[in-house]
Amino acid sequence: MKKKNKKVNAGILIIGNEILSGRTQDKNIAFISNWLNSKCGISVKEVRIVPDVEKIIIKNLLELSKRFNYVFTTGGIGPTHDDITAQSISKAFKVKYEYHKEAFRILENYYGKLNFNDGRKKMAKMPRGAKLIYNPSSAAPGFIFKNILTLPGVPSILNSMIENCKRYLIKGSKVYSKTLNLFTVESNISKQLTFIQKKYKKFVEIGSYPFFRLGKIGVSIVCRSTSKKELKKVNKDLISLVRFKKIKILKI
Amino acid sequence: MKKKNKKVNAGILIIGNEILSGRTQDKNIAFISNWLNSKCGISVKEVRIVPDVEKIIIKNLLELSKRFNYVFTTGGIGPTHDDITAQSISKAFKVKYEYHKEAFRILENYYGKLNFNDGRKKMAKMPRGAKLIYNPSSAAPGFIFKNILTLPGVPSILNSMIENCKRYLIKGSKVYSKTLNLFTVESNISKQLTFIQKKYKKFVEIGSYPFFRLGKIGVSIVCRSTSKKELKKVNKDLISLVRFKKIKILKI
Repeated sequence: MKKKNKKVNAGILIIGNEILSGRTQDKNIAFISNWLNSKCGISVKEVRIVPDVEKIIIKNLLELSKRFNYVFTTGGIGPTHDDITAQSISKAFKVKYEYHKEAFRILENYYGKLNFNDGRKKMAKMPRGAKLIYNPSSAAPGFIFKNILTLPGVPSILNSMIENCKRYLIKGSKVYSKTLNLFTVESNISKQLTFIQKKYKKFVEIGSYPFFRLGKIGVSIVCRSTSKKELKKVNKDLISLVRFKKIKILKI
Repeated sequence: MKKKNKKVNAGILIIGNEILSGRTQDKNIAFISNWLNSKCGISVKEVRIVPDVEKIIIKNLLELSKRFNYVFTTGGIGPTHDDITAQSISKAFKVKYEYHKEAFRILENYYGKLNFNDGRKKMAKMPRGAKLIYNPSSAAPGFIFKNILTLPGVPSILNSMIENCKRYLIKGSKVYSKTLNLFTVESNISKQLTFIQKKYKKFVEIGSYPFFRLGKIGVSIVCRSTSKKELKKVNKDLISLVRFKKIKILKI
């Protein structure tokens, strides 16, 4: 059987002054990346964090949407003046920024006709041709326009919506990963690691990350590949190295 | 007295597959931003997260170093094969990648002559002309080259080094901020907020961020400005709005 190896990638654009200023610690990058990796076989190749400034958002949207299969944006789709993601996408691709009929209906039902004020109505405005990403926790939908998936910035709401992105995504080959946690320091094994990485260059990506645990210093060796077979081979080489150097493995 | 308002900005380049894959939750962005804001009056204007790929690192280094007063990089200065930040900077600016004499001496002293292997020596290699950023926790120094400050990826080590960046930075005007936490929803005040933001457009940046606390939904209104006077004026307008709408303020 012929092995198929379909690579699908994505970029993430985090929109929000509060992340740039350090006021808010971003939690969406790791969440989206993990979800895309594990559920869709999609690898995130670049992340950018930009302020709530239309010109800057447009420039980055155009760049990222051209370079990656998908772009995920977070933030800037609420009711206030600093929420300008939807209108920036419309301007970037020169399409009308208008009420999405179904989004309007969803929000009108949710708030009730009497309480459906201008701020709330704004959340139904999208670039013409957008398709909805439903929001089970606070009604206001995200949307997909071209290859751009637009999600809110509040992590709990974003998390509740992520599964609704799936129907719009083409899946890539699953990336498997294997981690070895070693009680040693990086510089003790760096030479041999370089050798092993070169040997498996084509199929496996090896990363090395120091950790501090149980009062001891260690290194996590993370191997990632779309091929389980190659991953096994690398692991065998790593275990030989570990035995030769008499390094203790941390079992979790 | 003439008011001086010096704007100094920075970009951050996070280098590391482990952040992009979602394996590691970044903590350096918020830390660096907060420190630059509060200690140096420097605003972070853009963050990028990129993989351990030389070509991509070089492209982003050149772009960011041109656009911002300073660029902070994190990650990729350890002893292993995937640590390629220093050599990427050298290539980007076409200068020699060589041993930094003082860094070499520091590391040799730290590890001892007998244990100073190739991996450890690698950490003393930098672009020619680099100046050291001392590392009080694990010896291996970061460095500044042109307007690029290169720091490690491990948060605890980075945190211990940040004060040693100060001598290389020109300070900007301090940005003051004032936060009002309101028990209301964004859409209840979005219209008036837009009006107030327009009124103070020139001096104050107003952000609006939903929160969930004590089982209630609320909104944090964050105002930021280099002028304390303008900040006071905005706050007065906001308090009038809050009173008019009979909104409760959360006092912390």
